[in-house]
Amino acid sequence: MAAAEPTRILMAVNESTIKGYPHASISSRGAFEWTLQKIVRSNTTGFKLLFLHVQVPDEDGFDDFDSIYASPEDFKSMENRDRTRGIHLLEYFVNRCHEIGVACEAWIKRGDPKEVICHEVRRVQPDLLVVGSRGLGPFQRVFVGTVSEFCVKHAECPVITIKRKADETPQDPVDD
Amino acid sequence: MAAAEPTRILMAVNESTIKGYPHASISSRGAFEWTLQKIVRSNTTGFKLLFLHVQVPDEDGFDDFDSIYASPEDFKSMENRDRTRGIHLLEYFVNRCHEIGVACEAWIKRGDPKEVICHEVRRVQPDLLVVGSRGLGPFQRVFVGTVSEFCVKHAECPVITIKRKADETPQDPVDD
Repeated sequence: MAAAEPTRILMAVNESTIKGYPHASISSRGAFEWTLQKIVRSNTTGFKLLFLHVQVPDEDGFDDFDSIYASPEDFKSMENRDRTRGIHLLEYFVNRCHEIGVACEAWIKRGDPKEVICHEVRRVQPDLLVVGSRGLGPFQRVFVGTVSEFCVKHAECPVITIKRKADETPQDPVDD
Repeated sequence: MAAAEPTRILMAVNESTIKGYPHASISSRGAFEWTLQKIVRSNTTGFKLLFLHVQVPDEDGFDDFDSIYASPEDFKSMENRDRTRGIHLLEYFVNRCHEIGVACEAWIKRGDPKEVICHEVRRVQPDLLVVGSRGLGPFQRVFVGTVSEFCVKHAECPVITIKRKADETPQDPVDD
């Protein structure tokens, strides 16, 4: 039963909307720690974690009210800054894996998270995709959409959805 | 990181609509074997599998075109027969677990599968719920509904959805 190859788990991770740079979102951290405790357990050589962070170009732009874009270089410097933030986010997960002794890889893509995640599943062919979910009700969902619902339907591998715990929900549940 | 308690995985399993008694459905067997290979792996003491089979009273009645119900005893004997079929289904999974050395428990409930599964999650509080899915497209889904979609939204624990493989899809994809 013990396969030679480790089970490759792709985890889609994103930044917190409330705690800012360089914090991982509540649902990303929750999904990660749950996976270590409940799936990997003591079998650290049986698993490899793959971290994918998808940056949303437009959403990141909201932080740039004070910026002036006068040349292509200005956009380039913004992209570099986003890139740096993404790298710091991934550093958090990679460091935790190294502490524990679980093999990992991490990378950044830009685009619509749900589309990019499903595309990366086709490309990388993990055994399992883990997505954290804010666990929003139908009313809240109308405005924000959910990446997890889309991935459960469309990703070409088994998908695990891990809802944020009730006691970790911030004042505005759309935050994460 | 190694918790003392094993990770308790609840698996909702059902009978095949095409192969009949006492076969497990394609998606149930697929989800079970995937869980053993990719999650449990060689760490057989780290996990406990809980098998829940929900019998649908009305659906089972479709097999009874030739039966005549003249007294309460007739219904009771039908219930006993359904019960026997359910026990044979669970036997398949329990035997496999014993072969491999993974702790398990199995039981039968009657009712609407999606409601009963979510109710049992609240009662038993597993770490993870595994549901197989036929992976039907939106058109097919209109007619059959999907238990997995409901559970991902409403079950009060992380949920893993495992779609049936394309090469295991029967001629009529609504079959399983």
